[in-house]
Amino acid sequence: MARTPIWQSIAAHLRDEITAGQFAQGDKLPTEAALSARFGVNRHTVRHALGALAEEGVVYARRGAGVFVTQVPTDYPIGKRVRFHQNLTLAGRVPAKEILSLETRSATAVERKTLALAEGDMVHDYEGLSLADDQPVALFRSVFPAARFPDLLADLQATRSVTAALQRGGVADYTRASTRLKAKLATATQALHLRISEGAPVLHTTGINVDAGGVPVEFGNTWFAGDRITLTLEGG
Amino acid sequence: MARTPIWQSIAAHLRDEITAGQFAQGDKLPTEAALSARFGVNRHTVRHALGALAEEGVVYARRGAGVFVTQVPTDYPIGKRVRFHQNLTLAGRVPAKEILSLETRSATAVERKTLALAEGDMVHDYEGLSLADDQPVALFRSVFPAARFPDLLADLQATRSVTAALQRGGVADYTRASTRLKAKLATATQALHLRISEGAPVLHTTGINVDAGGVPVEFGNTWFAGDRITLTLEGG
Repeated sequence: MARTPIWQSIAAHLRDEITAGQFAQGDKLPTEAALSARFGVNRHTVRHALGALAEEGVVYARRGAGVFVTQVPTDYPIGKRVRFHQNLTLAGRVPAKEILSLETRSATAVERKTLALAEGDMVHDYEGLSLADDQPVALFRSVFPAARFPDLLADLQATRSVTAALQRGGVADYTRASTRLKAKLATATQALHLRISEGAPVLHTTGINVDAGGVPVEFGNTWFAGDRITLTLEGG
Repeated sequence: MARTPIWQSIAAHLRDEITAGQFAQGDKLPTEAALSARFGVNRHTVRHALGALAEEGVVYARRGAGVFVTQVPTDYPIGKRVRFHQNLTLAGRVPAKEILSLETRSATAVERKTLALAEGDMVHDYEGLSLADDQPVALFRSVFPAARFPDLLADLQATRSVTAALQRGGVADYTRASTRLKAKLATATQALHLRISEGAPVLHTTGINVDAGGVPVEFGNTWFAGDRITLTLEGG
């Protein structure tokens, strides 16, 4: 009876560890050198095992970055109402937000134009991280007209939710007036926050939300981790 | 009177060549080494000149790839009706399509599901390149139910236009039922066709077009060059 080839045993071992959650979706596996040392085999054998797992779709190699546990990207609808908490919940993920910074400052020229503000007007600036099942999926920076929402920073601090904070500010509903989308490569800072490689693909969206009267209430920039999010649009 | 620093002269010279069209939008400039040799200066001086041009927004550096002439990405609306020719014309660009392949073959499982076909049904497969002002902006692969459109390949060959070919096939109007978007890195083949670097950002969209009765007529995959196209959505 033929013995199981050693690379198959190693593949099975790694598969078990992934299934058991020792490596989570999106995690980087140890390097070939580290795995060689750990299993006491040469790198060719490790490569054979990893190749088999890649063919099964369990892991994938990213050039120059290493081998990662495959993950199914989360669907994220960008329709008339874009709601992070609801989108993630519907996708069966646990949503969370992490605040990176909250400040009130003068609006830039672009922000004044987008939010219909005057020279010297202030904006609240909310920078943060959106997480799905504890994994960062997007980095965002949203700005809001400060004069209209005097308590917004405190409300964002308390709830972390744009929808909840705008509701407390008297905006019962808001809709997306326009969205712009672009594929980019992650900068070093973005990569650090999103826990991806510098140069990994990111989907940069710019959106303007308006209240029921069509007045802009939020100007948002979001950088989605390309491997973790698929944006979806339903047709008219 | 102070003489003009040499780096300023070199920057002015390159600026003139770009303005004169010697380097077009998106073109890669010669390497620092080549520019050093050409102007008979050291690389530090060349870097200083390129840095000044980058600050002006005339060129930009892409890590590991070189220095490129800045271009303003073309806005591309993905609303209810996505029409390449009309989109590009409205953006002030000259649209063109290049056929890479036209064939009729068995539908894959995904295509059968998407186009509501049965096992053994055939599809027409149109692979091509979309150009704006002679520059490739997108690579696409569209499939159509072959039984419904017996003359589609000939019509695509003649017109290169999906809209025109479907019209000849009796579809007066079609609309986008759904779109999925993802940021990715260009593969070697995609990079070759799009004339971008391997690993440059691409925006991958998957769309299903349906006729007036809601029957799928086209299943399309498009890879937009991230630096050249901004997708835009108008809100509901």
